[in-house]
Amino acid sequence: MTPAQWRERIRRGEWTGPTAGLAPGYAQANLVIVPRGLAYDFLVFCQRNPKPCPLLEVTDPGDPHPRYTAQGADLRTDLPKYRVYERGVLIAEVTDLMSYWREDLVAFLLGCSFTFEHAMLRAGIPVRHIEAGVNVPMYITTIPCKPSGPFQGPMVVSMRPIPAPLVPRVVHVTSRYPLAHGGPVHIGDPKEIGIRDLQKPDFGDPVEVREGEIPVFWACGVTPQAVALHTKIDLLITHAPGHMFITDLLDEDLTFT
Amino acid sequence: MTPAQWRERIRRGEWTGPTAGLAPGYAQANLVIVPRGLAYDFLVFCQRNPKPCPLLEVTDPGDPHPRYTAQGADLRTDLPKYRVYERGVLIAEVTDLMSYWREDLVAFLLGCSFTFEHAMLRAGIPVRHIEAGVNVPMYITTIPCKPSGPFQGPMVVSMRPIPAPLVPRVVHVTSRYPLAHGGPVHIGDPKEIGIRDLQKPDFGDPVEVREGEIPVFWACGVTPQAVALHTKIDLLITHAPGHMFITDLLDEDLTFT
Repeated sequence: MTPAQWRERIRRGEWTGPTAGLAPGYAQANLVIVPRGLAYDFLVFCQRNPKPCPLLEVTDPGDPHPRYTAQGADLRTDLPKYRVYERGVLIAEVTDLMSYWREDLVAFLLGCSFTFEHAMLRAGIPVRHIEAGVNVPMYITTIPCKPSGPFQGPMVVSMRPIPAPLVPRVVHVTSRYPLAHGGPVHIGDPKEIGIRDLQKPDFGDPVEVREGEIPVFWACGVTPQAVALHTKIDLLITHAPGHMFITDLLDEDLTFT
Repeated sequence: MTPAQWRERIRRGEWTGPTAGLAPGYAQANLVIVPRGLAYDFLVFCQRNPKPCPLLEVTDPGDPHPRYTAQGADLRTDLPKYRVYERGVLIAEVTDLMSYWREDLVAFLLGCSFTFEHAMLRAGIPVRHIEAGVNVPMYITTIPCKPSGPFQGPMVVSMRPIPAPLVPRVVHVTSRYPLAHGGPVHIGDPKEIGIRDLQKPDFGDPVEVREGEIPVFWACGVTPQAVALHTKIDLLITHAPGHMFITDLLDEDLTFT
């Protein structure tokens, strides 16, 4: 099934589950929707923090149809699940946004780590949380994001344990995808970026780090959501974790060359 | 001399010439300044057209001091020459902006082709306009930029003749610098992108294309200036051609990995 066929199936309500593994080879995207009044500061935030916030598309205010990343798509209906927040409080988890959409809303689509995980697998690098069938572990770090207007906060990272001999290769492979978080932001000792216990992630599930493996950390797309949530803006809408937007872009389009 | 020393010399009025070749190894930047009321649409324009508009920094409204690309710099004084436009008409060419700066102005700093030209030279690839001591030839193409609000128009490209056996190498070398326009947008027949006569560039100077050389075209930083100018916005300020902002960033920082 093509990305367009998956989006149509999701639009009809026939698929409400996570999107991992659907339409392999095509990039999936994080969704963050904010009112136009805050969109400028949020866009500057993304420009200043491109590793956690790699922008694939910014829609025109009020227009739910992305123009460049997916033909014929509707961001109000084409993701399996959404979360709606008012002043920082989750008020609804819904399968479409028809009753929440407004003429002043701007949607930000951001590259997602699925793209570089596929590249890792193609390069023979194991991805532990996929093997274990759990969510990737994510941690709030002491690395500050560069602030913009009201948006500020720490970078959230994801962690994947990598066999030591493969660490150079994983840097090389993931750095090819700057629009999917790019290369790691940290390799090795978690304490250096303020993580006390790898077995207690702030989001997602813990995974085993085996003898001879190095914990490697990437900027995570949860960062902009966490930052937007923390500012308690009037209305914030995001995809539900793991329930991404399936674009028409190839994973290779996220190499930005 | 370091970038900071060059900026100080320029600030004191001791250097008003072009900046090509100053502080080698450090990235220079295009400057575009617009009022806050238009900054959002212009920022989205840059996001949608990253090859002609590779953003290095967006300043806070009214703040003439970049925070991330140059320590202690002042964008009102630290470029050798500026151009000021009102409603699309050039009203002044000045060596500082002290009498034009306003509390609502936002500065955009964009990567510049000097960065990849240095990389070409290091890789043994000739750069004809540098050899000839003239400006790079630039052409208005039929490649449309993706519009944003009032900002729209064709992409402007620069052209460098490359010996045929070196074309793969020049693609590889320049693609490493996505924040300095990245790899070429077109290789070969100029007519395919709407250029009728290579010897009649729209900006800059013509250069010789010798037997066995292929014309290679890169997205050019003149694009956002031309587009902003075309929209006849109230106030637009840019660097004067060739009189760039010298940043503290290394050329290698523009690899965006």
